[in-house]
Amino acid sequence: MSRKGLIDDLVSANHILFKEGVVDGFGHVSVRDERDPERFLLSRSIAPATVSPRDVMEFGLDGEPLNPRGRRPYLERFIHSEIYRARPDVVAVVHSHSPALIPFGITGTSLRPVFHMSGFLGQATPIFEIREAGGPATDMLIRDRKLGTALARTLGKAPFALMRGHGSVAVGASLKQVVYRAIYAEVNARLQSEALRLGAITYLNDAEAANAARTNDGVIDRPWGLWKARLKRG
Amino acid sequence: MSRKGLIDDLVSANHILFKEGVVDGFGHVSVRDERDPERFLLSRSIAPATVSPRDVMEFGLDGEPLNPRGRRPYLERFIHSEIYRARPDVVAVVHSHSPALIPFGITGTSLRPVFHMSGFLGQATPIFEIREAGGPATDMLIRDRKLGTALARTLGKAPFALMRGHGSVAVGASLKQVVYRAIYAEVNARLQSEALRLGAITYLNDAEAANAARTNDGVIDRPWGLWKARLKRG
Amino acid sequence: MSRKGLIDDLVSANHILFKEGVVDGFGHVSVRDERDPERFLLSRSIAPATVSPRDVMEFGLDGEPLNPRGRRPYLERFIHSEIYRARPDVVAVVHSHSPALIPFGITGTSLRPVFHMSGFLGQATPIFEIREAGGPATDMLIRDRKLGTALARTLGKAPFALMRGHGSVAVGASLKQVVYRAIYAEVNARLQSEALRLGAITYLNDAEAANAARTNDGVIDRPWGLWKARLKRG
Amino acid sequence: MSRKGLIDDLVSANHILFKEGVVDGFGHVSVRDERDPERFLLSRSIAPATVSPRDVMEFGLDGEPLNPRGRRPYLERFIHSEIYRARPDVVAVVHSHSPALIPFGITGTSLRPVFHMSGFLGQATPIFEIREAGGPATDMLIRDRKLGTALARTLGKAPFALMRGHGSVAVGASLKQVVYRAIYAEVNARLQSEALRLGAITYLNDAEAANAARTNDGVIDRPWGLWKARLKRG
Repeated sequence: MSRKGLIDDLVSANHILFKEGVVDGFGHVSVRDERDPERFLLSRSIAPATVSPRDVMEFGLDGEPLNPRGRRPYLERFIHSEIYRARPDVVAVVHSHSPALIPFGITGTSLRPVFHMSGFLGQATPIFEIREAGGPATDMLIRDRKLGTALARTLGKAPFALMRGHGSVAVGASLKQVVYRAIYAEVNARLQSEALRLGAITYLNDAEAANAARTNDGVIDRPWGLWKARLKRG
Repeated sequence: MSRKGLIDDLVSANHILFKEGVVDGFGHVSVRDERDPERFLLSRSIAPATVSPRDVMEFGLDGEPLNPRGRRPYLERFIHSEIYRARPDVVAVVHSHSPALIPFGITGTSLRPVFHMSGFLGQATPIFEIREAGGPATDMLIRDRKLGTALARTLGKAPFALMRGHGSVAVGASLKQVVYRAIYAEVNARLQSEALRLGAITYLNDAEAANAARTNDGVIDRPWGLWKARLKRG
Repeated sequence: MSRKGLIDDLVSANHILFKEGVVDGFGHVSVRDERDPERFLLSRSIAPATVSPRDVMEFGLDGEPLNPRGRRPYLERFIHSEIYRARPDVVAVVHSHSPALIPFGITGTSLRPVFHMSGFLGQATPIFEIREAGGPATDMLIRDRKLGTALARTLGKAPFALMRGHGSVAVGASLKQVVYRAIYAEVNARLQSEALRLGAITYLNDAEAANAARTNDGVIDRPWGLWKARLKRG
Repeated sequence: MSRKGLIDDLVSANHILFKEGVVDGFGHVSVRDERDPERFLLSRSIAPATVSPRDVMEFGLDGEPLNPRGRRPYLERFIHSEIYRARPDVVAVVHSHSPALIPFGITGTSLRPVFHMSGFLGQATPIFEIREAGGPATDMLIRDRKLGTALARTLGKAPFALMRGHGSVAVGASLKQVVYRAIYAEVNARLQSEALRLGAITYLNDAEAANAARTNDGVIDRPWGLWKARLKRG
């Protein structure tokens, strides 16, 4: 993909995540630089719905902007940098405060796949407790490398992690995949929360979750096409 | 109805189901060929909201496309083919993952008609458990004739079936009826779920459900007209 | 108000009730004829969102259209006719299946005013059980004068009644008031249902409810103006 | 800021609060006059979504309009005047009936910060019971100085107070801050209510709440910019 194509997709990902209710004025999405895996692209500190190509900055894996030109970076860029450092397989990262997931993080409720669309969640969604690495008096933000490293450690090899009292983080092998995961993790949380009030849930088992995830990865262009089409309609 | 009219209605059904929240990037709707009951019409594998007449393909009751011309069919076309094969009375089929219904399927909660609009549900909504026919390690999809046959068997003579960890299927004697059923089954699930938290529910009895269904079938052009009008407004 | 003005307001009421989520493809609103209290105005049988002035028909208090000119009336016009007959104070009637109210009717949960906006509900919202007047095998509809009379009897002097397994009916001294009541009864149901899950509710007492209702009647042009403005924006 | 700039921001605040679901046909927002702290600006009695600059009136701290020119003020302007009188630190006030907060007030449920976005709530959100100051037969409104004073006393030094059976009030050091608080208090209520059904909640502690509030105050232009951009798109 061309440089321009990658930046356009990153801008689209920002707008899609807003349109689909994953981010509001806050939250961010990044993508690893195709030409240099030690770098990644992330907007300057503005609301995702308002991001345009000229807002996209490049960062090193220390979380510092390479060419800021006066643009202010997100305080929490270390979420991205430390995950890219720890996970060579990760090409894109979404951080959000999407609403259905917050209750799971703050009650320590295990997020598990209730249907095939969220099979990627697998069997164990980790929950990051910032008090363990940052003590009892943080502002909840991943505002330095130490906290980013701790978050990446909690994430481990998982595709998704909850952050207590804050939000969540999704990772993927592409922008399309990470956007899909951020959207359907939120959907899964809504469905699971509702189902828990009806009775005991039969979750996808390990094989069902893994197989469903693989199948959906094969048709990932379908929802991406829809989400892009919805942007054009305004 | 002319061939063109039937295809236009199928396209409208796709768009209505998206607009009314029954399908998202996934899900599909088909209609039996009026001229040949051994054939049915179904879009190629794209998001329902983006379907246009040239995406509509024709299939035989073995689930294979008759004139693919390079167009990729849905993996789950066997939901449609096997139901048309087992149910000569069925003229249209909707498969979706509509959100309020998922919690019923995964908790084994009986979906029952709470008001006259969903009288068609009758007294017993079956739940399809793919593990029975497909074993413990499927990807949850109805991706072959064997699984389609098993689903059709679970559906039996019913107008609607839940699919555990996946979604649901509605059948009808026309596109208008099946769209109505897919929409109001979802509404019924929302209302029933909410009511179960308030107290014991007085459901429609058998006679009320059957009579209400018959009455609503008589005015089915009314909601269809509204749903089509809403498409035009964008 | 001129005849044309009254019909325009009735058309607006239809559109507002759709826009604000009280009616969908079904439901209806009527107004008593200012010049002849033995007559009332009600659309022919179409979706409220699509009503235009030429769809408005006039009915007698027996529920029969005075000048049908081939237009098909709603099956349930007897809801309106029998309430107008029994309640000389009533100038406008809304019948709907608005979603938050259904769970109250089917579980026999008492709908009570939780905040000043719904003070008009007073202390006791009656629930109509069609089995009492119509037996165990109706289609749930108020399709004749006998059932309309029974509904009016259950309503009594109240401004609002729930109908088990069907919907609800609101009455008012004007179109503006009845639209307000239909909208805020639905809001009240949402809030009450949610609050019942948090703990014991302090409802408005009799005096608070009556006083708040009187105050809000004095500013009823304010929400009506907003709802009309929202129609123009589409 | 110029006089015109302040009035434009007040108009925007009215429109944003409607667009984001905090106010409907009712509710209001005011700002203290920059040139004279004994005065404040507040619209005449119309729906917030319809406010334009010429609707903005000026009031003294007794709640009386200084230059009414026939314009009718809100009955509850004493919410604003008495809070400005009691709290010299307050520059802007929002009063609303936003839906997720009503259940907390009527059940006496403590509203507490569940995530960093609502850290400003701190540890104790007071609940105003109008029966204490106004007796058992009010219309629930803050319609005079005595009731306004009582409300201001309940608010104390807090940024937010619930009003039983009525709504809530947010205060801030600027229009941007008070709009942020009104929006995220509502979000917090939704999340807390949902989480209470999942299990015991780990709330932000005092330090986390205070620190997160300070951090978010530093980026308050970001959501404000988004909310304004959303107004333009209609």
